[in-house]
Amino acid sequence: MFEKRKVRAHTNIALIKYWGKADEEYIIPLNSSLSLTLNDLYAETSVLFDPALDQDTFYLDGEKQNGSSLKKVQHVLDLVRQQADIEVKARVDSQNFVPTAAGLASSASGMAALAASASLAAGLDLDKKDLSRLARRGSGSASRSIYGGLVQWQKGSNDADSYAIPIDPADWGLGMYFILINKEQKKVSSRSGMKQTVETSPYIEEWARTTDEDVEKMKEAIAQRDFTQMGLLMERSASKMHATTLGAIEPFTYLLPESLHAIQFVQALRQKGFDCYFTMDAGPNVKVLIKEEQKAAIGQLLQEEFGPDKILYSDVGPDIQDITNELG
Amino acid sequence: MFEKRKVRAHTNIALIKYWGKADEEYIIPLNSSLSLTLNDLYAETSVLFDPALDQDTFYLDGEKQNGSSLKKVQHVLDLVRQQADIEVKARVDSQNFVPTAAGLASSASGMAALAASASLAAGLDLDKKDLSRLARRGSGSASRSIYGGLVQWQKGSNDADSYAIPIDPADWGLGMYFILINKEQKKVSSRSGMKQTVETSPYIEEWARTTDEDVEKMKEAIAQRDFTQMGLLMERSASKMHATTLGAIEPFTYLLPESLHAIQFVQALRQKGFDCYFTMDAGPNVKVLIKEEQKAAIGQLLQEEFGPDKILYSDVGPDIQDITNELG
Repeated sequence: MFEKRKVRAHTNIALIKYWGKADEEYIIPLNSSLSLTLNDLYAETSVLFDPALDQDTFYLDGEKQNGSSLKKVQHVLDLVRQQADIEVKARVDSQNFVPTAAGLASSASGMAALAASASLAAGLDLDKKDLSRLARRGSGSASRSIYGGLVQWQKGSNDADSYAIPIDPADWGLGMYFILINKEQKKVSSRSGMKQTVETSPYIEEWARTTDEDVEKMKEAIAQRDFTQMGLLMERSASKMHATTLGAIEPFTYLLPESLHAIQFVQALRQKGFDCYFTMDAGPNVKVLIKEEQKAAIGQLLQEEFGPDKILYSDVGPDIQDITNELG
Repeated sequence: MFEKRKVRAHTNIALIKYWGKADEEYIIPLNSSLSLTLNDLYAETSVLFDPALDQDTFYLDGEKQNGSSLKKVQHVLDLVRQQADIEVKARVDSQNFVPTAAGLASSASGMAALAASASLAAGLDLDKKDLSRLARRGSGSASRSIYGGLVQWQKGSNDADSYAIPIDPADWGLGMYFILINKEQKKVSSRSGMKQTVETSPYIEEWARTTDEDVEKMKEAIAQRDFTQMGLLMERSASKMHATTLGAIEPFTYLLPESLHAIQFVQALRQKGFDCYFTMDAGPNVKVLIKEEQKAAIGQLLQEEFGPDKILYSDVGPDIQDITNELG
């Protein structure tokens, strides 16, 4: 009756950040955002709706999950069951292809892969727009992982019109380094961090207003393949986002001293003539946008400074893929 | 005809920050601010108007100054000459009593001492309000160094009504540690940093609006001698000020990795039960507001972490003083 389906979805890093919800339940953002999908960081998730099951089960990297981890998955399964008008429980198996101990949040790729595999497994034939809307309900940034390349999440104003659209395949030599700041110290999740910021920071309105403008500027820079302008806009967006949390009550920051050191190192590389720009999300790791032609030179300098095991690289990733045919 | 006069003025650290000018020429701030005057960091300045001189001369710690350093002093001398209706050149001798290599900006104490000694030497008998107004023209924060203890700079709207007033002598056991981050790396002066922020940061309006509210909250906390509330308000103000520069185009920060480490150390001390709170100005050093009863315990922990030569302490300082009688 139900088929097991499997999907691969790639993670994405926002160049113009998503930060703050206008609607907590439907995950409608305060501002539009724009991201780059990455090839080397992805999730593979299979779903089987099985009438023999008496409860949903979720295995992540082979380990059975409970509590909030399971609840987040069930939230998406419930939305799929609602749309498909079924009440069958499911078994979800997800694997995270993120190099060991990277500490990189994988909710974007994980929730996108789940939304796609669950909807296929339930017999729904969603187009990419509706898939983006569904993934959004699992995790805001997952809405963007439906597409490869450069992707805009149009904020919209409700469940129907808040979804991602592809902007550019970005097949012209972009890449991203990750500098891993390996502290197990993520005190404030992105979800609760943005909530606290929206509720208490005097800067959040100007953040959202100017960020919608930044998305338009970024699209212009992309259209012109103006890498320098893209990089500067990306750094401004990250800085401006991290500024909002310093205005919260109580103030907090995702930056560790080592993050600030990495940022300053990236900016110093620029002084030396390398075309590279930083960004940071709701955690201490620093990401570096580069042009592939400088991959080797920049990679060597980053590895010398931070150690080879702290540096990851990815080029640009593709659209979400149905890989049911890879099932054993 | 003219007497040599000498004045001692103490520096101050803002608990609620001054950041941004509404008027560059008259140094009218965007927001009111509130500071603590410190006993152990001060300047002593003597001025003699001497008809025999054919130009102004300025010695700082015995070294003859030129360029912008001399120009800033002449700006205040010119204002004094204008008020006294004289055209005589002056010799200015200033000594900075800040422990070696502290890298602590001394414009507040220096400009306050200069304003007072020059006006006395020119035969002007200014009251403290007019002295604060004059010092303000030399450096905004100098307006507050006219008074000891806790001092508010009422922003006002023009040259006549923008001046400091004393709030509380703060003779109830406050103190401040300085953690010296000794990098010679002040790339952006406070003057140009605030100008860039006012011109380009989307957060500056909300900064100014909410900071005026913060001054009122701080005055309430002071009236109640609620040290915890004072400390939290102080940290919020510093964080909110440093957030504004991250919204500037291009973004910049006064924080070094070591500054962030020091901030996190102070906050960790609080987790251990110590009543201490950080603030930071337009440079990398971190200041820590404490209660004198915890001076020894906190001082020991700071010295162990940062090294004894990186830690300074000061208790609360007095009003500006005429020390002409100490002239040799």
